[in-house]
Amino acid sequence: MGGDFGPHVTVPAALQALASNPQLKLLLVGNPETISPLLANQNAELLSRLQIVPAEHVVSNDARPSQAIRSSHGTSMRIALDLVKSGKARACVSAGNTGALMGLAKLMLKSIEGIERPALMTVIPNLKQQKTVVLDLGANINCNSRMLVQFAIMGAVMAEYVVGVANPRVALLNIGEEESKGLDNIREAAITLRNIPTINYIGYVEGNELLTGKTDVLVCDGFAGNVTLKTMEGAIRVILSLVKSPDGQQKQSSWLMKLFKMKIVKKWLLRQITKRFGHLNPDQYNGATLLGLRGIVIKSHGAANEHAFKAAIDQAIQAIEKQVPDRIAARLDAVLPKSE
Amino acid sequence: MGGDFGPHVTVPAALQALASNPQLKLLLVGNPETISPLLANQNAELLSRLQIVPAEHVVSNDARPSQAIRSSHGTSMRIALDLVKSGKARACVSAGNTGALMGLAKLMLKSIEGIERPALMTVIPNLKQQKTVVLDLGANINCNSRMLVQFAIMGAVMAEYVVGVANPRVALLNIGEEESKGLDNIREAAITLRNIPTINYIGYVEGNELLTGKTDVLVCDGFAGNVTLKTMEGAIRVILSLVKSPDGQQKQSSWLMKLFKMKIVKKWLLRQITKRFGHLNPDQYNGATLLGLRGIVIKSHGAANEHAFKAAIDQAIQAIEKQVPDRIAARLDAVLPKSE
Repeated sequence: MGGDFGPHVTVPAALQALASNPQLKLLLVGNPETISPLLANQNAELLSRLQIVPAEHVVSNDARPSQAIRSSHGTSMRIALDLVKSGKARACVSAGNTGALMGLAKLMLKSIEGIERPALMTVIPNLKQQKTVVLDLGANINCNSRMLVQFAIMGAVMAEYVVGVANPRVALLNIGEEESKGLDNIREAAITLRNIPTINYIGYVEGNELLTGKTDVLVCDGFAGNVTLKTMEGAIRVILSLVKSPDGQQKQSSWLMKLFKMKIVKKWLLRQITKRFGHLNPDQYNGATLLGLRGIVIKSHGAANEHAFKAAIDQAIQAIEKQVPDRIAARLDAVLPKSE
Repeated sequence: MGGDFGPHVTVPAALQALASNPQLKLLLVGNPETISPLLANQNAELLSRLQIVPAEHVVSNDARPSQAIRSSHGTSMRIALDLVKSGKARACVSAGNTGALMGLAKLMLKSIEGIERPALMTVIPNLKQQKTVVLDLGANINCNSRMLVQFAIMGAVMAEYVVGVANPRVALLNIGEEESKGLDNIREAAITLRNIPTINYIGYVEGNELLTGKTDVLVCDGFAGNVTLKTMEGAIRVILSLVKSPDGQQKQSSWLMKLFKMKIVKKWLLRQITKRFGHLNPDQYNGATLLGLRGIVIKSHGAANEHAFKAAIDQAIQAIEKQVPDRIAARLDAVLPKSE
């Protein structure tokens, strides 16, 4: 159990997930001496569905992926992925080193046939009270057009089976809507996607449409995906902080202002604001799925809090229930020519 | 006078700019039959500082840059740039076709020695009540490391002379903070920047730091820059729209809620919110400078409203006052080896 805060966040999140999912069983891979005390005085029924799998080491957060993979024996990450490979677990959720997790997962679980490189995918809420599937978020910073097409197919499967959108709209992230815009790989992917009849390809979409619900699936290379998602999260956090923080330079003190300074009113106002913006708060949709593998692997933010890490576990449960890897394999089989 | 709304936005904005800058003189390049009626009944002193320069055509918004440049004779864009080239105007502000403006401006005004390709730059507000210079925003979607270094130098000059920051911090936009992260051109530019003593290079910065004021200058290729800026603007517009729009599903009707439904209270609340968020509203900082040319060219959003277009004119005034092209030429001369 790695991540920035280790078991102190992941164990309480695991207990929460067990409480809200009566069918769930969890294997906690990590140091029993750290984990056990955090389970003291917990509900016996929850504990009966939880098992500690000992691991001596964690992959260090700042290790280079190649080096982390070479020295991964005995780490909680490798043991967790081994449990998925052997069928003893149906998914792996990790807040650890992203590069190492992607590399190890690909090495151990292998890609689905037809997928050159797995992609990091997340599902973000949009203005239309729907959700948008976005990929790749950083697994591949250089993508050729074939990879973008594969991401589009995987994203469409996610939108259809996990988000529940019939005939999901698929778009490519670009810096303009005209066909002539953007990088070569994007323009080439557009031509291919336009000719796949089972994909509802709607064209290019720009960064300002990320939250508007203009598309159900947004496809991009890992560099652009990482930049757009992080920028969006940053902007929302900044605005939420402006709402929550007291405005020191406020000099007016009208009756209304005095009202707003009352503790109870402030609390109420904050609750109203959270209601309005809450679904855009990055904690609510933490967890990126490593899509395109023969097993289910979810990457949580390293700095995830308890609530956010539980959201990542919930994503794993959904992916298991909706049989995401099998659906992707079947769709690729149907869409792509056999020679690929 | 092009852009999405033409003189109906740009003329009132020009009048506003004249009113708030007593030294300013403006040449309005466009169709006199459209412009003249918009000047009727205006203050005589303002009109004395304004002159119409007739142009028969505008560059079409959807024309490909190469084609637009070939058939640019007699367009308002070409005539305006000619006025800058001949010294009759000291800057050109346009809401027209971005690609055509960049191509024509480069062709007619030429790049400063040492600059391979001009870059689109804007100045955005940040949380620390300071401003961040961001470039490139879309002029160059493929950038080598030399270009990124040139952008860094130009950005530092802007931060120093226009924003007014001594020894401005310069960062490269990347998808992680570790040295090993990102694309080859970014890593190469980092090595060069670290070795230029007059640049205060602070390393990589991620998209979530765009608004936090972690850096004074943020350098990236035009694709990433366009994605990050548009994503940020989109996120802020979405949140402002959520604040302003009535929440239809609100069922509670406490005394406090009733209070909030009073028109005067709503208006007051909106004013408070605007005070808090207003400086992040994209209209407030409309206008991207085409940096690296031997003249001053400002690109306004095509869809800019009156207020936003005036902000673009204000940027032009600042660039003139601070002698931006001369400062950049001098800095390049000092920083880059003569052989380049």
